[in-house]
Amino acid sequence: MQIIESINEMQAHSVSLRHQGKLISFVPTMGFLHEGHLSLFEVAKEESDVTVASIFVNPAQFGPNEDFDQYPRSVEKDLELCRQRGVDIVFLPKKEELYPTGYSTYVCEESLSQPLCGVSRPSFFKGVCTVVAKLFNIVRPDVAVFGQKDAQQAAVIRKMVQDLHFPVEIRVAPIVREADGLAMSSRNSYLNEFQRRDAVRIYQALCKGKELYDNGNRNVDRILAEIIHHISECRRLRVIYVSAVDKDTMKPITRTMVEGQTLIACAVWCDEVRLIDNLIL
Amino acid sequence: MQIIESINEMQAHSVSLRHQGKLISFVPTMGFLHEGHLSLFEVAKEESDVTVASIFVNPAQFGPNEDFDQYPRSVEKDLELCRQRGVDIVFLPKKEELYPTGYSTYVCEESLSQPLCGVSRPSFFKGVCTVVAKLFNIVRPDVAVFGQKDAQQAAVIRKMVQDLHFPVEIRVAPIVREADGLAMSSRNSYLNEFQRRDAVRIYQALCKGKELYDNGNRNVDRILAEIIHHISECRRLRVIYVSAVDKDTMKPITRTMVEGQTLIACAVWCDEVRLIDNLIL
Repeated sequence: MQIIESINEMQAHSVSLRHQGKLISFVPTMGFLHEGHLSLFEVAKEESDVTVASIFVNPAQFGPNEDFDQYPRSVEKDLELCRQRGVDIVFLPKKEELYPTGYSTYVCEESLSQPLCGVSRPSFFKGVCTVVAKLFNIVRPDVAVFGQKDAQQAAVIRKMVQDLHFPVEIRVAPIVREADGLAMSSRNSYLNEFQRRDAVRIYQALCKGKELYDNGNRNVDRILAEIIHHISECRRLRVIYVSAVDKDTMKPITRTMVEGQTLIACAVWCDEVRLIDNLIL
Repeated sequence: MQIIESINEMQAHSVSLRHQGKLISFVPTMGFLHEGHLSLFEVAKEESDVTVASIFVNPAQFGPNEDFDQYPRSVEKDLELCRQRGVDIVFLPKKEELYPTGYSTYVCEESLSQPLCGVSRPSFFKGVCTVVAKLFNIVRPDVAVFGQKDAQQAAVIRKMVQDLHFPVEIRVAPIVREADGLAMSSRNSYLNEFQRRDAVRIYQALCKGKELYDNGNRNVDRILAEIIHHISECRRLRVIYVSAVDKDTMKPITRTMVEGQTLIACAVWCDEVRLIDNLIL
């Protein structure tokens, strides 16, 4: 496994791989890898000759009062996991090289990024789109793999790729959950024993909503209310949003839910830890 | 000469040229070609195996009260000029394909684009960066050529390319002027005989400023005042800005002008026609 730190070297290496006719797949991550990330590597490996993963905690996607400094980091362990799971190249750029002094260019998706997490994290998707555009131009992948856990992020990236004509196929891999149902997330490491126990209620609440739907209930507000009610029963959990949206456009569903197309997404504070989860009806 | 209208076809064609090891140069234009554009083709041809020109009047770079609808268009004549000057491929995208309903992704350079034209045309560079990023991803050039006439645009594009790591070399070709000195521009076609006669005063004023500099005057304000004074002597001309900036950063020069590095740029209303010009001290 190769570890590349320099932008020029990564770019040159990708050009050379492309000249050799190799298909490149790419999994951008912020590190602190868990089984969710590793499942993305599996998809990537099936899709290509060479799998590149990047590890970079992207300052541009954190708000001024968010957890950039505390965000968990474990590069050595991450590299070992990448090695074990057959990643070919890990791109480990330096913050000073990706965002040097005087950095000033940003990519904004202005529609799908507005609702849901866009309300409470107003510059999050600007940061995500910017770093992904940069990484796409450096790594020049044929395929890039994102996780359904960040459903809105995946939809926004897809829209950016389409609007700006990046020649990259976007794949989205299913959410990987802990045994009790909690969606895997690097931020779960923030949870103490009691928070961890209560956090599972988020997924349980989503499942209760889906149960209503599966039992024939077609009233969106009734389903969302059920989910909010179940989450709010736990004192530790505070709902940021619970919404039903079209899974591609992120537009709110007000009337007809369409099977396989309606996404129920939520963000919840578990004490001071912000968790998100979603499922498709 | 090939004419390509479809995005997919252009992108596929570029991929195939790259596979053949061809170097691609690119000149994005809004059409209504004049000798200024044609000089860019010359630079492009020297730099590459295949020269692509695009003709597209980009709605995203026009403000709501600007001249998008009136902007002069002459596609047949443009194609003939491209043919005569050895352009290999003309990319002629449709507005509906570049900006379909629901289009929502933009690229913004937030520093160099703020002064000069950024003040009076607040969304101009956002539109320019967006369309150039799109065209770069479609045409995938090795080299792209811009005109020094739009000095701030060239600097902003260079910054965007650097910040987002587009693997494209930017070349900037000198201003081409009419016999009397007026910088060539598609918008010169808006000028009637009397406006045309007075418009030359803009370049003459810049030259008067340079003359002061060449005669040893190193007071920026004095030089700018001379230029503004000379333009303002003509009733028809109204100064939008006359500024001395660093030619790469677009930061205002307040003290020391550096030969070869200080750009004197101006925008002027000639009645209802907005003209720009510049020179390097």
